[in-house]
Amino acid sequence: MQSIRIRLEEAIRSRDFAGLREAVDNLPSSDLSNLISELPSEQQAPVFRILPRKTAATTFEYLPLEKQEELLKSLAQDDVAAILNEMSPDDRTMLLEELPATATRQLLSLLNEKERAVAAKLLGYPEGSVGRLMTPDYIAVRPHWTIRQVLDYIRVHGPDSETLNLVYVVDERGVLIDDIRMRRFLLSDPERHVTELMDNHFIALKATDDRETAVNVFRKADLAALPVTDSEGVLIGIVTNDDMLDVAEEIATEDIQMFGGSEALEEPYMQIAFFRMVRKRAGWLVILFLGEMLTATAMGFFEKEIERAVVLALFVPLIISSGGNSGSQAATLVIRALALGEVTLRDWWRIMRREIFTGLALGAILGGIGFLRITIWSIFSDLYGSHWLLVALTVGVALLGIVLWGTLAGSMLPLILRRLGFDPAASSAPFVATLVDVTGLVIYFSVAAIILRGTLL
Amino acid sequence: MQSIRIRLEEAIRSRDFAGLREAVDNLPSSDLSNLISELPSEQQAPVFRILPRKTAATTFEYLPLEKQEELLKSLAQDDVAAILNEMSPDDRTMLLEELPATATRQLLSLLNEKERAVAAKLLGYPEGSVGRLMTPDYIAVRPHWTIRQVLDYIRVHGPDSETLNLVYVVDERGVLIDDIRMRRFLLSDPERHVTELMDNHFIALKATDDRETAVNVFRKADLAALPVTDSEGVLIGIVTNDDMLDVAEEIATEDIQMFGGSEALEEPYMQIAFFRMVRKRAGWLVILFLGEMLTATAMGFFEKEIERAVVLALFVPLIISSGGNSGSQAATLVIRALALGEVTLRDWWRIMRREIFTGLALGAILGGIGFLRITIWSIFSDLYGSHWLLVALTVGVALLGIVLWGTLAGSMLPLILRRLGFDPAASSAPFVATLVDVTGLVIYFSVAAIILRGTLL
Repeated sequence: MQSIRIRLEEAIRSRDFAGLREAVDNLPSSDLSNLISELPSEQQAPVFRILPRKTAATTFEYLPLEKQEELLKSLAQDDVAAILNEMSPDDRTMLLEELPATATRQLLSLLNEKERAVAAKLLGYPEGSVGRLMTPDYIAVRPHWTIRQVLDYIRVHGPDSETLNLVYVVDERGVLIDDIRMRRFLLSDPERHVTELMDNHFIALKATDDRETAVNVFRKADLAALPVTDSEGVLIGIVTNDDMLDVAEEIATEDIQMFGGSEALEEPYMQIAFFRMVRKRAGWLVILFLGEMLTATAMGFFEKEIERAVVLALFVPLIISSGGNSGSQAATLVIRALALGEVTLRDWWRIMRREIFTGLALGAILGGIGFLRITIWSIFSDLYGSHWLLVALTVGVALLGIVLWGTLAGSMLPLILRRLGFDPAASSAPFVATLVDVTGLVIYFSVAAIILRGTLL
Repeated sequence: MQSIRIRLEEAIRSRDFAGLREAVDNLPSSDLSNLISELPSEQQAPVFRILPRKTAATTFEYLPLEKQEELLKSLAQDDVAAILNEMSPDDRTMLLEELPATATRQLLSLLNEKERAVAAKLLGYPEGSVGRLMTPDYIAVRPHWTIRQVLDYIRVHGPDSETLNLVYVVDERGVLIDDIRMRRFLLSDPERHVTELMDNHFIALKATDDRETAVNVFRKADLAALPVTDSEGVLIGIVTNDDMLDVAEEIATEDIQMFGGSEALEEPYMQIAFFRMVRKRAGWLVILFLGEMLTATAMGFFEKEIERAVVLALFVPLIISSGGNSGSQAATLVIRALALGEVTLRDWWRIMRREIFTGLALGAILGGIGFLRITIWSIFSDLYGSHWLLVALTVGVALLGIVLWGTLAGSMLPLILRRLGFDPAASSAPFVATLVDVTGLVIYFSVAAIILRGTLL
C-alpha cells in the first residue's frame, strides 16, 4: 500500500499519466479511495481524472461525504457530470442532501434526463425518510415467468441491481406481491414457474416511513434488503442492509450527543467548523444555565437558614449531585429502552412502579452511607457541631427523598417528552440534573426545617 | 394475523392438532415466532411440538433470547435436541452463551457429534470476539474450477450456506485467497474458470478480533458478509451483515447506559430482575457518592468564608453544575468520536486545542450571563448586598474558569481512560460532573478569596 502511494505521488509529480494509470489499475475501489484521501488535496483531482468512468464513480462513493464535496469543487464540470451519472442513486442522494440547496440544483442540472428524474424523485421524500435511502435498482419479475426466464433477465439487468439476494414479484400494475430469495432460483429446476416459489408473504417499508422504523424492521427481518412501496403498494425501490448499519450508527450518535447535553453535531467532530460547533454546544448550555439560576433563587430563599446553620451549606453539592446522578441513570435506561422498542408509552405505569422501588432502594443505600459518614466523622472530630446526629439524620432522610425524586423524574421525563412529540433523547443527563437540582434544594431545606427546628434552626 | 391467533388458541384448547397444524402451515417463521411469543407460556410448547423440525428451528431462531430460554425449559429433551441440531450455528452460539454454564453443558450433550464440534469450537473464542459471531456455513471453491462446477456445487451445498452473496476461494491448505460476488458467477460464461474472476483482493476478519472492529470494518466494506480466518489465514467461517446491525445496536446500548452512569444492563429493561438491576445501578452511584463526598470536605475547608459571606453559598449549585454540564458535553462528543474512529489517541493535542478555545468561548458566554444576572437583580433589589459588583465579578470569572476546566477535563478523561485500557464510555456524565464539582468549588472559592479580600472576606 505504502509503495503504491509513493509510485502514485511520483507519477503525479512527473506528470507521467501512463504510469499513474498503471499504478491505480487493478486496485479495488475501496483501497483507491483510501489512497486518494491520503493524497494532498491538489493531487486528488488529477488521479480522479485518469480513472475509467465506472471506477471513478465507485471510488468516489467510498469517499466520506466531506471529501466528496471538496473533490467536486476541484473537478471540471464534465468529470463531475460523468461521476454523478455513474454513482448509485442512494449514495448520490446522500451527497446531494448534504450540499447547500444552490449546489444541489447546479449538480442536478449536470445529470442526464433519466438520472435527474431518479434523483429528483428520491430528493422529494422528507429528510430522514426511507424514500431518501432507497435505490431504484432492483430486479422485479412477473409471476407467470419461468425460472429460466428470470435467470436470463437477471443476466441482462443484473449489473444495475444493488442486490441480487432478493428478487421481487410484481403484478401488472407494479404492485409488490412477493419477495423471493435468489438462492431459491439457483436451487430450483429452471422449467418451474415463479408462482411455484411464491408464498405471498413479504415485509415492505413505505417510502414515508422514518429511518428509525427501517432500522427496527431490519433488525427483526434479517434480510439483505427490504422493498419500499408507495401508498398504493407499488414497488418503487429497495433499501439495502449495508446502508442500515450507517443509519443505525448515525441515530446512535445523535442520541448519545443529545444525551450529553449538546445538539447533534451532524458532522464529524474533527471536521465541524469551530463556530458552528460552539453554537451547537452553547444553545443547550445557556438554556440549562438559565434553568440552574433557579438554584440561586432557591438558595436565596433559604439564606436565613444557611446563616444560622452554615453546616447545612456544606452538604448542598453532595445532595443535589446525588439526585442528578440517579436521575440521569434512570433517564438513560428509559431513553434507550424506548429507542429499541423495549417499552412504549403505554408501559408508563409499569416503569414508574419499577422506578419507585428502585429509587427507594438506591436512596436507602446512599442515605445510609451519608448518615454513617457524618456519624463516624463526628466521633473523631467536632466538624459538624454538637447536633451532629440531627445533621446526619437530615442528610440521610434528604438523600432518600432526593434519590427517589431524581429516579422518578429521570424515568418519566423521556416519556413525557415522547408524549409531547419531542425526541426522548432530549432529556439529557444535564437537563435531568438541572431539573432535579432545584427541586432537590427545596427537599433538602424542607427536611432540615422539620428535623432541626428548635435546635440548629 | 388476529384471526390466526384466535384459531391457534381454539385449536390448542380443543386439542385439535390437525387444525393446529393447518393454522400454522404456510406461515413464515418470523410471523409464527411473533404469534407464539404472544401466546400464554403454557400454550407455547404444544404449538412448537407439532411444527416440522426445520420450521421449529427457524421459528425458534426468531424468538428473543429470553423467550428461547423459557421455551427450552418446557420442551421435552427430544424436541430440544431436534431444535438445537437444526438451528444455525451463530444463533445457537448466542443462545448457549446466554445460559448458565451447567445448562450450556447439558444442551451441548444433546447435539449430534458434528454439531457439537461446531458449537464447542465457536464457544472456544472469547466473549465479544468475532469467533462467537461467525457461522461455518459458507461456500468455498477452488481456483481451477469452472463456473459451471461452482454453480453445480452451490446447487448441492447451497441450502446450508448462510449467504449466497459471496463465494470464497481457498487454496489447497484452506487458506483464503479471494472473495467473489455471486453476481459475477451469474453474469459470466459458465465455461470460464474461477481464476479469471479473481482479483486476489479481499477484506477478512480474524476470529480473535473484537466485535467493535467487525462493525467498523463492515461499515467501510459495504459487503453482505465478511470471511473470518484463523491466525494462519485459513478460512474458518463468515460473519453476516444482518448480525452486525444487532451487534452495533448492542454496543450503542452499552455505551449509552454507561454514559448515563450505570453499568450496562445486558438485558432488556423490562425483563431484568429487580435486584440485578439495583445492583448494576447502585455500584456506580455509590462510587460517585463517595467521590462527591469530597465536595463536603472542600466546602468544610471554606466554612469560614461562607460564614462571613453567605451570599457565596447561594451560587454554589449554579457554578458547579455549569462545570458539570460543559464537561459531560465535551466527554460525550469525544467518546462518540473515538467509538466511530473519527479521532484516535494520537489526536489528543488537536482535541485539547479545540476544547481550550471552545471552553473559553462557552465560559465567556455563561460568565457574561451570570455577571449580567447579578448586576440587573442588584439594580432592583438588595439581595446581594452592597458589594454586589464584586460578587458579580467573582461569579463571572469563576464561571469562565470552571467551564474551561470542565470542558478540558471532560474531553481528556475519555482519552486517558482509553490510554489506560479502560472503555472511554466509562467517563460518564455523572463521573465527569463529580470530578468537576470538587475542583469547581476550589476554583470558585479561590477566585472569591482574591476578588473579595478586604471587602466581604
